[in-house]
This record gives sequence, C-alpha cells and structure tokens, in this order.
Amino acid sequence: MAEFKKCYSYICRNILSKSGGKGMANTLRESYNQTNYKLGNHGKRNVQVLKEALQEIDENVESDIYGQGKIIEDFQEKMAKLLGKETAVFFPSGTMAQQIALRIWCDEKDLGKVAYHPLSHLEIHEQDGLKKLHKIETILLADETRVIELEDIKEMENGVACVLLELPQREIGGQLPSFETLVQISSYCKEQGIKLHLDGARLLEVLPFYQKTAAEVSALFDSVYMSFYKGIGGIAGAILAGSREFTSQSKVWKRRYGGDLISLYPYILSADYYYEKRASKMAEYYESAKELAALFNVCEGIRTLPIVPVSNMFHVHFELEKEEAEAILTAVQEMTGIGISGYINVINENTPAFEISLGDAYKDIPTEIVREMFGVLSGKISEVRREK
Amino acid sequence: MAEFKKCYSYICRNILSKSGGKGMANTLRESYNQTNYKLGNHGKRNVQVLKEALQEIDENVESDIYGQGKIIEDFQEKMAKLLGKETAVFFPSGTMAQQIALRIWCDEKDLGKVAYHPLSHLEIHEQDGLKKLHKIETILLADETRVIELEDIKEMENGVACVLLELPQREIGGQLPSFETLVQISSYCKEQGIKLHLDGARLLEVLPFYQKTAAEVSALFDSVYMSFYKGIGGIAGAILAGSREFTSQSKVWKRRYGGDLISLYPYILSADYYYEKRASKMAEYYESAKELAALFNVCEGIRTLPIVPVSNMFHVHFELEKEEAEAILTAVQEMTGIGISGYINVINENTPAFEISLGDAYKDIPTEIVREMFGVLSGKISEVRREK
Repeated sequence: MAEFKKCYSYICRNILSKSGGKGMANTLRESYNQTNYKLGNHGKRNVQVLKEALQEIDENVESDIYGQGKIIEDFQEKMAKLLGKETAVFFPSGTMAQQIALRIWCDEKDLGKVAYHPLSHLEIHEQDGLKKLHKIETILLADETRVIELEDIKEMENGVACVLLELPQREIGGQLPSFETLVQISSYCKEQGIKLHLDGARLLEVLPFYQKTAAEVSALFDSVYMSFYKGIGGIAGAILAGSREFTSQSKVWKRRYGGDLISLYPYILSADYYYEKRASKMAEYYESAKELAALFNVCEGIRTLPIVPVSNMFHVHFELEKEEAEAILTAVQEMTGIGISGYINVINENTPAFEISLGDAYKDIPTEIVREMFGVLSGKISEVRREK
Repeated sequence: MAEFKKCYSYICRNILSKSGGKGMANTLRESYNQTNYKLGNHGKRNVQVLKEALQEIDENVESDIYGQGKIIEDFQEKMAKLLGKETAVFFPSGTMAQQIALRIWCDEKDLGKVAYHPLSHLEIHEQDGLKKLHKIETILLADETRVIELEDIKEMENGVACVLLELPQREIGGQLPSFETLVQISSYCKEQGIKLHLDGARLLEVLPFYQKTAAEVSALFDSVYMSFYKGIGGIAGAILAGSREFTSQSKVWKRRYGGDLISLYPYILSADYYYEKRASKMAEYYESAKELAALFNVCEGIRTLPIVPVSNMFHVHFELEKEEAEAILTAVQEMTGIGISGYINVINENTPAFEISLGDAYKDIPTEIVREMFGVLSGKISEVRREK
C-alpha cells in the first residue's frame, strides 16, 4: 500500500512539475513544454496569471487583515451564497480546510473517526496530516477502482463521525456516483447522525453533468470545500462553507494552523477574477472533455478513464509499455506542436497513463490540427504495435 | 490569565485592524486614517504594495509548484545564506513555521515540552495551536515585564526539548537581552542538549543594536524564523532556516499543515522585493525610533517602553485614562494631520498604550511638522492634566 500511495502521489505531482522523471520522461516533458498548443488546462502558470487578475483592481483597495476587511468578507459571502450555505471561510489551501472540517465534526461527536475513499487527497497527498495532527482514524470505503456507493457506507463499521465524498473522484479519472446515489447517501447519513463533507475541489466542474446548481449539490452536505486553482485556474486558495457555528470554529482552527494570514488578498482577488471568468464555462470544458476523450478512444491501444468523461477531466491509458508510450507522445508532440502530456506514469499494475483537465487552452487549437494530431498519434501507435 | 491573553491579542489586532473598538476608539481610528502623514510603518497595506512588487517581474516567470521551482528555491537559498544556515524553507506564516520547528525538536528528543516567554506569539496569538495540534507542553520563562535571562533557563525544570527566544520581545515594547546573554544562553543550551529556536520575526530590526550580522545572531540558534511583513513590509510569509535534515522534515510538516501551496510566489516575490528595498534601512528605522521615542518622552504624562528603543519599535504609555488619551490623540491627529495611532489599549493593569514600528513613513514627514505635533500633544496633555 505504501508503494501504491507513492505512485499516486507521483502522478499528481508530475502533472504540474517541470521535471518528468528520468531519461525519456525528461524528453517528453521538454517536448511538451516546446509545443505551441496544449490540450489541457488554461495556459501557463506564470506571473501573468496574477498580473492579469490585478489589472483592473484599484491600487487603493485595502488588504484584508487577519480574516477581516471587505476583500475577504465580500468574497466569502459571495461563495456562501453560491454554495447555499450560511457562511464561508477563505483558506490558503484545501488541505488545511478539509482537515479542519473533519476535526470539527469529530470534536462535535467526540469521536475521532472518519471515512473516505482510499484515493482521497487526505489519504495519499497530505503526508498523513489528518492522522499526525489530529490522531483521527480513517476508514477506507470502496476500493481503488470505483466511486463510493450507498452500500459501502451502509456496510462500514459503526462509530464514524463524518464521511467525506470527493466529487469527482480525481485519482480514478474523475468518476462520479449518480445524483440519486448522492441523495440516498445524504439521507442515510442524516438518519445515522453521520456528518457528510464534500471534497468539492472540482465542484463547479461536475455541475454540467449533474445538471444541478452548486447549491443543490451542496445542500446534500453539512460542509463543503471548493478549490480555486483547478477548473477556475486561480493561483491558490480554497473555500470552506457550512453553518455559522461550523465556519466560526473553522476560523479558530485556521489561526491554529497558521492559515489566518495577515493578507490573503493575492489569492482572493485572483480566485474572484478567474471565478468570474470561468465559472460559466464549465459546460464548455465538459463538452471539450467528451469530444477529446472520444478522439483518444478512436486510437487503438488507448482508452480513457472514464470512457465518457463526466466532468472536464479524464485519464488516458495506454496498452503499451511506459517507454513506448513516452516515445510516441514525444514524437507526436514534436511533429504536431500540440502538447498532449509532459509525463506518463504507471500506477501500481495499471497501464501507463496521464491525466488531462480541459480548460481554456483547448479552444485555441484549430480543429483540423487536433484531428491531424490524432491521425499522427494513431499512426505512431500502429507502427509500434506492428513492430512488436 | 485568559483575560490577559485576550487583551494582548487585542492590542496586536488593533494595530492593523480598521475598527478600533467602540465609541471613542472609532473616532480615533477615523482621525488616524484621515491624516496625511503617519509616524509608523511603511504606508498603507493596499493592493499597490503587491502591484509595486510585481512591476518589474517578467510576466513569463513561472510559478513555483508545491515548493519547487526557481522562484522559491532561489529565495530560500538567498535567505539560508543571509542567516548562515544550510537551508531555508519559505512558509505562508510564522505561526506555521514555528509550531513545526518546535514539533521537530520535540520529536527528535521524544520529549513534548518547550519553554518560552509568557508573551510569546505562540502563547497569546495562536489559539493554542501548539498545544491543540501537537500536545506539546509549555513552560513559561521570566515574567510578563522583562526578557528571558540566562538564570531563567538555568532555573527551569528539566526535560525541555527546546527553548524559544523572541528577539525583540514584541509585547513588552521590543526589548532585548544583551548579546552576551544570548551567547551564554546558547552555550548553556548546547551543554544541556536543549535546542534553541529563534523567533526572529523582527530579526533584521535588531541587528543595528547588536551590531551583528543576521548570520552572527542566527549562529547561536539551531533554527531560525524570520518574517517578511514586519520591518520588511511585504505582504505575508516567513522563512524557517536550519540544517538540511531539519528543513527537510519541516517540508513534510508544511505539507501536513496545508502550507505547501501550489503557488506561493505572490508572497515570495513581494518578500524579495521589499527585502531588497528595506533590509539595508534597518539602522535608519532604529535611529528614527530612538529620535521619536525621545520626543514622546519629553511630553509629561507619556513614557515609552523601552525608554530608549533597541530596534525600530517601542510602546507608548500614557499616565492618563484610556478615554483621555484617545481624546487627546484624536484631537492632535485632526489638528496636525500626523497619524500617531489608530487605537489605544489597556493591557491588564498597565497604563493605556499603543505600539509603534518605524518604517519608511516617518522620513516623509518634514521635521518641523513633527516637532509642531509634539508641541500640540504636550499642550493637550497639560490641559487635560490641569483640568483634573
């Protein structure tokens, strides 16, 4: 399990890291960086992202000060309204926000146990912060290949203060339970007196699939976390929303964590700017994801997970050796100028794969160049498979 | 003690907060905000502070990514060099950095006990994060009126993993032990196998008094924290420095805390910009503090703590009722256009007081206007005292 965790942690890190590993992977990263177009994301994560967000902001706008002031209070109110919750608190990170949410629910029940998916961010990306800082025990629901269903929760052992659901389940390509399942889980947890927390890092991204508002999804949960640098493409930061009583406790913990910074406005202003710019484009990203996944699935030897995306993201798996897949992507990126991925990872005994999240970048690529790229990709794969 | 803590916490918050409390205090805050000149600080904490820092930064400079990348690595290296330590790690806050430092030293000794001043930031401003998140016990050295001396450490009970010294001791006006005392404490702790941590939030600010480099002071400590929004006047952020082994553990804890943000560059770039702009001006701020304190001490009924500042900061105490002092400051600010303070607090059974930290703003005020203001202040106080 330790090895497995490490691998998952690695795939995530590589999506954004510059160095893609050893040998061939470096070449893949280089070829990716040199392309003019990219299939995924919103463009480069550089200082321009911040400069653009600040451009229209009056220089006399006053900083937030330790969680107070117009900048932070207005944004928190706006997000509380969006999520249909009484109040919301801006955090530097989702890691901090979610650990705190779980701690509050555990304290309320005087019961240090929570349940979540085995590939939850808390389980594989946070160096066991929840366990090391709070001594909270965790129960892993479902298995690594699928989302949590009602049965998983019904069958779990007693004495759990809170269940965390991640929508979409990122590490398995961004899969989702049905909305009906969510409703059933929500009412079951309510009956049982179990708190339900939403890891909605990518909450806006799943709304087009569910055909629901953020508030309609959030209504099923006692507390909700949402991120501003995934589909929204901000710089960093997160919102934690819930009742006034809940968020007021979360502010005390935010200070304990050292997250109550004197000024969080660089993140808040950019979160707000890119929220306004992109919140309404999630359906477009979702459609792009479905279109792009279909194009990948046409290539023999490639299969996306899920086959039909349910958000703006999916994973691309190769029925090839890792080195073969790397060589192919490198060549295709060099030939076509389209960046597909800067890394490929093999997770446990799975096939080599990479993650893709659709954003503004995809629409910049002329359709015929995308089609052409897939032709080249198909051809390259056939070549390699013939040679075997 | 609880009430006392709250008061100290309040004084700190008020220095930067917009609303200065109830009734008269609001008028004081308003009159302060309306002045053209301010005695303390570097000017307004508004968006311009960030815009100025970014002005010369190329928009193509790439973001740091989860603690990696040129922006963060270069700055960490620069700060490690400044502090004469092997390595350094950039943190979103000092609260986070210092709790982590103490936890690492406690783990190393398998001993969950540390010692610090009763008015340490950890004791009064962090909602007991150290205790709640780490179950670390604390021993309070010296008393609330003075700095920690060698004897306090020699007399403390056995079984302490780490002693934290804060230079200068902010909550008592920024007082300092002698450098000789520091050397003695350092060698005593070394002999006893006790780790010594420096709360150097205002480390650069004390160097002109000690006539030492940052590395010379840091050499006496096993780990050092420094802030970028005090004398430096950046937006937020902190450095934690020490051995490679120490900082590498601190990075794991930084992730556990949710402080390993995908992008910290807004804070890093501004920390670096204002470090370059102001690190060399600490002697000037120190001289201004001495000059200004002397002017305050000429006024009957006012006394600074310390009488002669040893850094860029000091506290101003009134031998008056709080309401009287507020009315006087409000009137003087309105009459002279010089901002002295936006709040006054009464700490425990002490006299009403406010804190002042010298920065760039002081030099902008023509000397004759400052002298004039002190004339008006003196006159106002005499008036009030005569009426009594």
